[in-house]
Amino acid sequence: MVQHPSAGAELCEARCIHPTDVARARAGLETEAVYSELAELFGALADATRATIVHTLLRQELCTCDIAAVAGVSESGASQHLRVLRALRLVKSRRAGKFVYYSLDDAHIALLVQVGLTHLGHPPAVGGEPGVLAGKDGG
Amino acid sequence: MVQHPSAGAELCEARCIHPTDVARARAGLETEAVYSELAELFGALADATRATIVHTLLRQELCTCDIAAVAGVSESGASQHLRVLRALRLVKSRRAGKFVYYSLDDAHIALLVQVGLTHLGHPPAVGGEPGVLAGKDGG
Repeated sequence: MVQHPSAGAELCEARCIHPTDVARARAGLETEAVYSELAELFGALADATRATIVHTLLRQELCTCDIAAVAGVSESGASQHLRVLRALRLVKSRRAGKFVYYSLDDAHIALLVQVGLTHLGHPPAVGGEPGVLAGKDGG
Repeated sequence: MVQHPSAGAELCEARCIHPTDVARARAGLETEAVYSELAELFGALADATRATIVHTLLRQELCTCDIAAVAGVSESGASQHLRVLRALRLVKSRRAGKFVYYSLDDAHIALLVQVGLTHLGHPPAVGGEPGVLAGKDGG
C-alpha cells in the first residue's frame, strides 16, 4: 500500500490498479498521434478571439474586414487567427473578386462551439443558429 | 481602397466592411466573458494527455491509479491533469473507501471529444461508445 500526497486532484489512498479495467481502457485508446491532433484542434478554439470568430461564422459567412470589425481586432490580427483556424480545418475561405469570405469548414465545428456554450450554460436560442441546421446563408 | 499585406491568412484586397452584416453578427455575439470561459473549456482539452484521459473516461469510470496507468503518466501527473479537468467541470469524482473514481461531468464533454475525433476522421465505432448513450458502467 503506497500513500499518495494530494498535491493535485484527490487521488486513491492506496495503489489499486485493476488489470482488467486498464486492459479494457487501453484497448479503446486511439494512437498518441490522434490525441495530439485532437489537442491541436481544441487548441485552435482555446483562444477567446478565435472562439468569437468561430461562433460568429456559425451564423453567417463573412469577409475578412467584417470578421475583424465584429471580433474587435485589427485586420492583421484577424488574419493571424484565420490562418490558425484554416490550417487546422476549422474554417475555409473563398475568393469573390477583391473579397475573401470565410465560413466554418463543416458542421462539426459549429457543433463543438454549440456544445461548449451549452455546457457553460449558454445554449443557443431555439431557431437562432440556422448555420448548423440549414447551412450558411451565403453571405 | 486600402491594400492589405497577406502575412497571415488571405485577406480582402479592398476594405469592404458591410455595416448590415457586421451589425447582425454583433447582435449574435455572447459577452467577452463567455468567450473567455469557452476558450478555457477548450484549453482543458488542448493537451494530448488530458484528451486521452477524457476519451478514456467516455467509456468507463476509472480510479486515479487506473487513469495514470492507461494514460501512461505518473499518479502525480494524472493528479495535475485531473485537477485542471475538474476545475473546469469536465470530470467529476466520487470517493469509495480508499479509492477515488473519476467520470465525465456530463454528456456534453463526451460529445465534444466524439465530434472532435469525427472531424479528424476517427469516428467512434458503432456501439463502441456506450458511455454517451447509456451512461457509465459504474466502474
